[in-house]
Amino acid sequence: MEYPTVLIENAVNEISKLPGIGKKSALRVVLKLLKEKPEYTETLSEALLKLRNETKYCRICHMISNTEECTCITPKRDTSVICVVEDTPDIMAIQQTAQYNGLFHVLGGLISPIDGIGPEDLNIQSLTDRIQNAEYQVKEIILALSTNMEGDTTAFYLAKKLKPFNLKLTTIARGVPIGGELEFADEITLGRSIVKRISYDLNED
Amino acid sequence: MEYPTVLIENAVNEISKLPGIGKKSALRVVLKLLKEKPEYTETLSEALLKLRNETKYCRICHMISNTEECTCITPKRDTSVICVVEDTPDIMAIQQTAQYNGLFHVLGGLISPIDGIGPEDLNIQSLTDRIQNAEYQVKEIILALSTNMEGDTTAFYLAKKLKPFNLKLTTIARGVPIGGELEFADEITLGRSIVKRISYDLNED
Repeated sequence: MEYPTVLIENAVNEISKLPGIGKKSALRVVLKLLKEKPEYTETLSEALLKLRNETKYCRICHMISNTEECTCITPKRDTSVICVVEDTPDIMAIQQTAQYNGLFHVLGGLISPIDGIGPEDLNIQSLTDRIQNAEYQVKEIILALSTNMEGDTTAFYLAKKLKPFNLKLTTIARGVPIGGELEFADEITLGRSIVKRISYDLNED
Repeated sequence: MEYPTVLIENAVNEISKLPGIGKKSALRVVLKLLKEKPEYTETLSEALLKLRNETKYCRICHMISNTEECTCITPKRDTSVICVVEDTPDIMAIQQTAQYNGLFHVLGGLISPIDGIGPEDLNIQSLTDRIQNAEYQVKEIILALSTNMEGDTTAFYLAKKLKPFNLKLTTIARGVPIGGELEFADEITLGRSIVKRISYDLNED
């Protein structure tokens, strides 16, 4: 594509580095910016720069925060459970379900030898420190990690690392999505759902 | 959606004002920016601000340009034809076809009484001035406008306005898209293609 000016070309190139935005969408963004008042572009740039330069990470749970300590230690939450996730969006997704009221811990990635990411690159030491020094006793650690090789490796490593603490270690349930048609489930998920099948509690009322 | 910080919320709100980007995509952009080095966000903001503040419009053809006069008066192009379009992206689309070597003229919009856009808001006076004062005689004006009410109104107005100049006035062909299946063509387009059918030139070899 030939752009009318270098300014447009540069802007398109930078914008299209963002996830989910190709050159065509980037050009639409550029034309929109040129159509709107200059103030809009200024507000947008300012929001991006402020975001990048002022965002902090909680020193306890490592979640994105605007202070050194986030609301992760609020007494409103169940302090006996910590849910371990890869990154902040996972926390947002879990919060959205309104089914969990415990604490979180962000690893900041998953163990991936191919990408050169080892356990020492993740917030694992700070997790064990946190369990050891907790004001209220931690009784359960829930692993909410991706179901891929990196997720499984990380879960395996964490299981070994957390064994001495003698607490309950669980993982979120894997299986056929609720509302999903059985015939459309992928065969690995379906296979695992059969192997790891759950007994009905017939005494439940 | 509950965002972890106000910084993220502000950035998501500003980004999602852009065309084709919803709140979810905006959040992905935000997380990408936080993951990348701060320099990337700086380069991006700078490109956007430079784009908005330094982009000029050619005073002759009104196309986006980085100087007061763009390449529209280059002797490489056929100066006897001017193709009139609504906006710069239309020029880029036509250039991409490599089927046109004449000049362009950007109206900057279409006549739309509902949106309060009248002929005086568009670059129409400058088009007639351009025809009158052209160094080389303009022999043909091609209207390449959208086929909707605004496009038709604008074409009608231009036809009346250009009549005194005694030049050839044409419009780009409307019809069934090339490579398109006839049964999927919309009925208005198909109907018009029959009414405005084109004779085969049987003497052509």
